[in-house]
Amino acid sequence: MAVARFDVLGIGNAIVDVITRAEEDFLLQQGMRKGAMTLIDEARAEAIYDAMGPAIETSGGSAANTVVGVASLGGRAAFVGKVKDDELGRAFCHDIRAAGVAFATAPASAGPSTGRCYVVVTPDGERTMNTYLGAAQDLHPSDIDTEIIGASAITYLEGYLWDPRHAKEAFLKAAKLAHEAERKVALSLSDAFCVDRWRDEFLQLMRSHTVDLIFANEAELQSLYQTANFNSAVAALRADIDVAVVTRSEKGCLVLGPDGIEAIPAFPVSRVLDTTGAGDLFAAGFLYGLARGADDPTCGRLGALAACEVIQHLGARPETSLAALARDNGLGD
Amino acid sequence: MAVARFDVLGIGNAIVDVITRAEEDFLLQQGMRKGAMTLIDEARAEAIYDAMGPAIETSGGSAANTVVGVASLGGRAAFVGKVKDDELGRAFCHDIRAAGVAFATAPASAGPSTGRCYVVVTPDGERTMNTYLGAAQDLHPSDIDTEIIGASAITYLEGYLWDPRHAKEAFLKAAKLAHEAERKVALSLSDAFCVDRWRDEFLQLMRSHTVDLIFANEAELQSLYQTANFNSAVAALRADIDVAVVTRSEKGCLVLGPDGIEAIPAFPVSRVLDTTGAGDLFAAGFLYGLARGADDPTCGRLGALAACEVIQHLGARPETSLAALARDNGLGD
Repeated sequence: MAVARFDVLGIGNAIVDVITRAEEDFLLQQGMRKGAMTLIDEARAEAIYDAMGPAIETSGGSAANTVVGVASLGGRAAFVGKVKDDELGRAFCHDIRAAGVAFATAPASAGPSTGRCYVVVTPDGERTMNTYLGAAQDLHPSDIDTEIIGASAITYLEGYLWDPRHAKEAFLKAAKLAHEAERKVALSLSDAFCVDRWRDEFLQLMRSHTVDLIFANEAELQSLYQTANFNSAVAALRADIDVAVVTRSEKGCLVLGPDGIEAIPAFPVSRVLDTTGAGDLFAAGFLYGLARGADDPTCGRLGALAACEVIQHLGARPETSLAALARDNGLGD
Repeated sequence: MAVARFDVLGIGNAIVDVITRAEEDFLLQQGMRKGAMTLIDEARAEAIYDAMGPAIETSGGSAANTVVGVASLGGRAAFVGKVKDDELGRAFCHDIRAAGVAFATAPASAGPSTGRCYVVVTPDGERTMNTYLGAAQDLHPSDIDTEIIGASAITYLEGYLWDPRHAKEAFLKAAKLAHEAERKVALSLSDAFCVDRWRDEFLQLMRSHTVDLIFANEAELQSLYQTANFNSAVAALRADIDVAVVTRSEKGCLVLGPDGIEAIPAFPVSRVLDTTGAGDLFAAGFLYGLARGADDPTCGRLGALAACEVIQHLGARPETSLAALARDNGLGD
C-alpha cells in the first residue's frame, strides 16, 4: 500500500450557506424544526429567502466543511461534490480551493443551480437549516475517480448523500474502491431526521462493513436505534460497528472501540455564537488525528478543538489556522 | 412642501462585497494601495479572486450601506442603484429590501454582471478595496424617478458615482429634482483617489450649490485641496460650502456650519476588526439625525455610534439594531 497522498477525501453535497440571524419567532412563523436540517424544494427556498432578513453567503456543505478543517490543521485534503457553473458554484470552488483542498469534480453546465442552505441562527447560537440541494442532486458514480480514492488514507462520506438520487451509488462505489485499496471509510450520520429517512440503510452500511467508522451525535444515535435511552443506544452501536465516535456537545465525546469506551472532554467555550459546522469540524480534527496515527484521546481532543473554534463565530468554516490553534494547545506537530 | 415620505434616499453603485482576511504581504504581492478603493476591470477581478483566500459574500456599496444604516436607526430609507438580474444581484436586492429599504431600480437583464468589491481586511482592521463596477456602470438618468426624489427629505449621493459613464448625469438630475422639491442634497467624497480623479468637478458641485452638505474624511479633504495641512483644508472647505462634516476616525468629527466649527468625539472601541463601512455608517447616523431635526452634536454622535458598531465586525452593514443602540446611548427617540 502506497503512502496516501491525501489524509482525508470528503464526498458530500456541495452547498453555499445563506446565513441570517433571527429570533425564535421566525422559526415558529415559518414552521421550521429548530436545530434540524430540512430538505426543501426551489419554491420553498424562494419563500424562505423572501421572508428572511439580510444574509451573508459563505461556502458550506458538511463534508466540504470537514475537509477544509483538515486542510486548516495542516492535513492534505480533497473533496468530491457537485455544483453548477453559476456564480455561487464559482464561489464554492474558489473557497474550497483557496482553503488548500484539492477539488476537481466537474461542475454541471445545465440543470438546477448550485445548492443552497438557508441557515437561521437564533440568539442562543443554535442553527436551523433548510437545504435546497440544487446541482448537488446530480452527483453521479461517474464523478468518483478511482485514483483519488486509492490515494486517500480515509474516505469520508456524509449521511446527507443518501438524499440525492444517484449519490448513494457514488457513495457505495467510493467505499468499495477505498476498501480495494486497503483504505478506511468513515461516515457521518449527519442529522437525526436524515437518520430517520435512511435508518435501515445506515444500519446495513455498518453491519456489512461498508463503513469502518461512524460519527454520530446523541440525537442521531437515538434516532438510529429509536430509543431515548443513551446507554442502550451506545451498547447497540458497539455491537454494530468496530469504531464509533459519539459527540455530546459541551459534554465532549465518547470513542467506542474494540477495547472499550473512552470519554474525552470538550474545550470550554465562553460564548456559543453559531453552532453551524460544529459536527463537521469535530470530524475534521478526529480524522486528521486518525490519518496521522494519533491515539483516540488525541483524535478526540483535536476534534473538540476544531469544533470549539467554529462555534465562536458565524459560519461553518474555520476563521483562524487550526494548525496554530492545535500547536497552542499542545496538540500540534 | 409635503412631509417627506423618506428621510434619506441614497443613490450609489450597487455592489456585493467579497471579503477576505489577509496579511500585509498579500497587498504588496498584489500591488494594492492599502486603505484605498481602486477600480479594476473584469480580468483583474478574476486574477485577484484567484489569488485571494476563502471569502464571504455580503451586500455592500457605499450609499447602499448608508441607507441600510438609516433604516436600522428607525429611519425611512430608499435606494437607487443598478444590479444585473443574476445571483449576486438577487442577493443585493434581497438584502437591502430585507433591511427595510425601498428599492425599485430595475435590474439590467443584459450586459456585465452585478458589481463586486474585493475587500481585503488586514490584521490591523484596515480594509483595502478593489471594485469591479459591472452592472453599476449602467445606472442611467432614466433610473431617477422624480416622485421618489421629491418624497425624500435628503438625497444622498456617493462620489463614486462619478466613475460610471452615465451615473453623473443621473446624479445631476437627482440633485436638480431635489432642489426643485425644496429638499436637501448631500454628497460623500468617497475616497481620496476618487477625489483625485474628479477634484474639479467635486469643487464645482459645491461652489455651484448643486450639493448642500459634504461628508469627507481627512485624506479626502487633503486630496480635495491638495494640501497636507489639515487646517488650511478646513478653511478652504468652509469657503466652498455652507455645511460640511469632516470625519477623523478615532478623533471624532468636525461639523463645519455657518456659525462655526463644532468638534464631536468618537465612541471608544476596544478592538477595530474591519473598518469597511465606517464612513458609510457615520453618514447614516448623521443624516438620520439631520432628517429628524436633531442638532449638530446629536447628528455627529449618531454618526459616531453607527460607525463604532460597524467597525467591530466583518462587513459594512450593521449586525445589530442601531435604533436600540441609539436608545441605550441616550440618542434614541
